[in-house]
Amino acid sequence: MSKFLHAKYSSLTPYDTSGEIESMKGYIRLNTNESPFPPSPKAIAHAHEAAQSLNYYSDPECRLLAAKIAEMNGIKPSQIVFGNGSDEILSLIFAGFCEKGAAFPDITYSFYKILAKFHGFDYITVPLKNFRVDPSYYRNANGRTLFIANPNAPTGIAMSLNEIEQVISSNPASLIVIDEAYIDYGGESSVALLGKYDNLVVVRTFSKSRSMAGARLGWCMTCDEIAQDIRNIKDTITPYNINAMTQAAGLGALEDEEYTSKNVETIRRVRDNTRVRLQEMGFDVLESSTNFLFARHETMSGEEIFSVLKKNRIMIRHFANPPAISDWNRITIGTPEQMQIFLEVMKGATENAKK
Amino acid sequence: MSKFLHAKYSSLTPYDTSGEIESMKGYIRLNTNESPFPPSPKAIAHAHEAAQSLNYYSDPECRLLAAKIAEMNGIKPSQIVFGNGSDEILSLIFAGFCEKGAAFPDITYSFYKILAKFHGFDYITVPLKNFRVDPSYYRNANGRTLFIANPNAPTGIAMSLNEIEQVISSNPASLIVIDEAYIDYGGESSVALLGKYDNLVVVRTFSKSRSMAGARLGWCMTCDEIAQDIRNIKDTITPYNINAMTQAAGLGALEDEEYTSKNVETIRRVRDNTRVRLQEMGFDVLESSTNFLFARHETMSGEEIFSVLKKNRIMIRHFANPPAISDWNRITIGTPEQMQIFLEVMKGATENAKK
Repeated sequence: MSKFLHAKYSSLTPYDTSGEIESMKGYIRLNTNESPFPPSPKAIAHAHEAAQSLNYYSDPECRLLAAKIAEMNGIKPSQIVFGNGSDEILSLIFAGFCEKGAAFPDITYSFYKILAKFHGFDYITVPLKNFRVDPSYYRNANGRTLFIANPNAPTGIAMSLNEIEQVISSNPASLIVIDEAYIDYGGESSVALLGKYDNLVVVRTFSKSRSMAGARLGWCMTCDEIAQDIRNIKDTITPYNINAMTQAAGLGALEDEEYTSKNVETIRRVRDNTRVRLQEMGFDVLESSTNFLFARHETMSGEEIFSVLKKNRIMIRHFANPPAISDWNRITIGTPEQMQIFLEVMKGATENAKK
Repeated sequence: MSKFLHAKYSSLTPYDTSGEIESMKGYIRLNTNESPFPPSPKAIAHAHEAAQSLNYYSDPECRLLAAKIAEMNGIKPSQIVFGNGSDEILSLIFAGFCEKGAAFPDITYSFYKILAKFHGFDYITVPLKNFRVDPSYYRNANGRTLFIANPNAPTGIAMSLNEIEQVISSNPASLIVIDEAYIDYGGESSVALLGKYDNLVVVRTFSKSRSMAGARLGWCMTCDEIAQDIRNIKDTITPYNINAMTQAAGLGALEDEEYTSKNVETIRRVRDNTRVRLQEMGFDVLESSTNFLFARHETMSGEEIFSVLKKNRIMIRHFANPPAISDWNRITIGTPEQMQIFLEVMKGATENAKK
């Protein structure tokens, strides 16, 4: 640490990206919940077109994207704000809307805790109940801003719209942030509740179902007033946050919803088939509404499974902490071919373990 | 403002992007210091290639770019951190390195003041002397972090390396941030001082000479220790801040330095010619080491000139504030053809004003 760094940042806990870097070296990447499919040809073509005039600043308001998303969701463009990935949207919300603290499940996207700590706000974690987010645990949030991934990661389990509404309606003094990174793979979107509540923010990303993790594009949908607040913070610290190629690629992807639907269908089919195959090998596998499975073997530890796969050049996500999930691994659904290789390695390893 | 917004953000002053949005409507854009030339064909080709595998997360460390820039500048990759535009680098430095306050010229890039206010740090502004940054004014900074654009904007005037070194060596307790957005158009880079001082950060961008404003790519070069501190903050709040297409385009641009040099030469030639022509029309024009001119007319006000040009669908940058520069306008150098049109409109207007 240099002597110039602010004392409050002397012990930061950066987000762990080591798995991503490792998985770039020719591994099968089942560890970061990326789509195994390339982006839509329309996304690529639009980005290529935008690259020709990259000498001009990008539109700070992403107006073409906002118009398209507003139309698709039956809301106004003014209710939408874009982020350099949904991570930036989450960071803007943690920075600006957690004066009374934050709350989120104890097992969820690890970035929430990192952001709460960084921005210096008090937070509490709420336990899952049988790996599910239980709405009754979120009564009396006392004005804390609630962050709920729906479907949740790494469990893969979705709450019903009715359960989400219980959380929102029982906490009118709290802002409720529903992080729908995986919603296209299952579950019901809370966008349907936007007309009814003024304390709801729905966060989305192009990183998963639309195969654009490398483009960094996320957005949120909320009431006009909150959108304007988030936009004001964005325009103060990072007015041109979305580059022109990414804006264009996003629009291209949205103009090719058939391609997204087809890929989502494939992932769901392969996911459900993989789950059955893993269960046959002695795995306990949670029901998933996402593009990944959360699984524990009856005899092999989480670390053993991670290691066997890594030796075979397959990366999955192992969580050393918290201990409650250290025997569970998160397995991203890849292409049918990748999952075939994965299942063969798993079959060999679990049969060896039985001997 | 919604009831959920943190009270400290109740009166934000966002960066003014209205000129940019307006200038998208078919105007000649001489108002945002963009390059009038498209990016290098290599930049476009690399970005197109990267778009094919956008389903994978981008490299959080931008390792290919870091290796190339390190080689070009005779430093180590570990001394480099990338930002979503140099604005993000500046924001990270304001967030993490201004515990004892900040100082910058009273007339400079307006974003410094916006960031200082946003992050809640005390700042002072230091007057220019005859539109120049005077190193003697920066003695005894008392640990404040100093932000100096070199060449400065909107004046266009560069400090010498010797003057910069005076500021650095007379303030060992201060971090000195030299923002070199326009350095390729003139002036000497402070990179030469990196081996000698551990309180220096040099900030650069791909937005100007490399025609990539729309790609959002900036970087800083500093000692290992400070680079690691900045990287830690970056990895905590925005680990994947640079998308894959932008990383690839940046590398492509750096592999085509001939193209950049050729464009820089054109801009310098057109700039110097435009300056002489404006002087002939009764303008006072500062000497420029950048891709823009700062000019005041002997009889027409800054606002009049701005209005006449806007009526002719040419945007330049007029500063209503501070009053000391309200009769000065900043004119980005466009293509030879664009500047011909600009000069013709100016000639007509100034001749009319004489009648």
